[in-house]
Amino acid sequence: MAYPPHLFKLIDALRRLPGVGGKTAERYAFELLKWPGERVRELAAMIGETPAKIGSCIECGVLIGESCPFCTTRKGSGLLCVTASPKEVFAIEETGQYKGLYQVLRGLLSPIEGRGPELLELDKLKNRLTRLAITEVILALDSTVEGDATALYLKQQLSFLPLKISRLAFGLPLGSPLDYVDGGTLAQALSGRHVL
Amino acid sequence: MAYPPHLFKLIDALRRLPGVGGKTAERYAFELLKWPGERVRELAAMIGETPAKIGSCIECGVLIGESCPFCTTRKGSGLLCVTASPKEVFAIEETGQYKGLYQVLRGLLSPIEGRGPELLELDKLKNRLTRLAITEVILALDSTVEGDATALYLKQQLSFLPLKISRLAFGLPLGSPLDYVDGGTLAQALSGRHVL
Repeated sequence: MAYPPHLFKLIDALRRLPGVGGKTAERYAFELLKWPGERVRELAAMIGETPAKIGSCIECGVLIGESCPFCTTRKGSGLLCVTASPKEVFAIEETGQYKGLYQVLRGLLSPIEGRGPELLELDKLKNRLTRLAITEVILALDSTVEGDATALYLKQQLSFLPLKISRLAFGLPLGSPLDYVDGGTLAQALSGRHVL
Repeated sequence: MAYPPHLFKLIDALRRLPGVGGKTAERYAFELLKWPGERVRELAAMIGETPAKIGSCIECGVLIGESCPFCTTRKGSGLLCVTASPKEVFAIEETGQYKGLYQVLRGLLSPIEGRGPELLELDKLKNRLTRLAITEVILALDSTVEGDATALYLKQQLSFLPLKISRLAFGLPLGSPLDYVDGGTLAQALSGRHVL
């Protein structure tokens, strides 16, 4: 006996979530079947309303409910932080150490996965840099091959502008014993050492 | 800056899925934000329609699309297999070794979690046993404390009826080297050994 047809479709739909394979999707589906109908429909509504209820700022790409809290209140800072996704903005805000503007890219460069420079929306970025009188661009990008490539490309493309371009420091994560740190990180931490 | 309010609600709703904690729920939520709106609403619809599209057979509790394939075609078998959830029925059907009826319990006994005998719907079970002239009840229950308790309780409650009550065999899982098997399983495999 096969699953009822809708169960197949549900499992298929759930498999599209990140990191969810067939077994996990099945587990979710069977859990949903145990829930009271009301609760299932509540989750469905919560998901379904998401595109309408959460948008991105057309200006900087940060996630917003109604209006962008950065573009309106941080205009004069002269700082622009570039991230690869809206999620990273929250992580940076959480530190409480940054009071500037943001620019969320549509992704990182990856020729292998067919992600080219159009993701970086360079024209928009350059336009904002001059319009907002930015003096420093902070590249808050992953310390991966894609992050490195994107940082390098952005640096090249923006080098003609009179501004400082920086990137987040590489080094030891806090609270990490030295012998748990990989060689690459250690090398970065060494070359980036600072005088006490 | 905090997440937009709907994002909080979405993350909260996703956390109700089994095995999904805060981090995973966040990951799912941010993935949904990347999807085109159409795709998000498709997943929502798939989930929302589930209670209406998939039901359980009122008779045996097996999941069904329209009509129960077991209650209609396997009436004369005299066999009734008792499982703790609809999912297990599919696993048993997959073996192709069983051609009888099913009875899906609403859960296993667990006094600690407040799950008592009402989950077993004994009256309904007894009624079916006599009405369908069942000669053997196979308890296909977990080999856990809850499964053991439920099996024991059912055996006691049904002992007055003229039928055989059996339980799935315990022993080595197929393809498992002996030294990977835990002591309890090994003890069960020993006591249940069969002559070759």
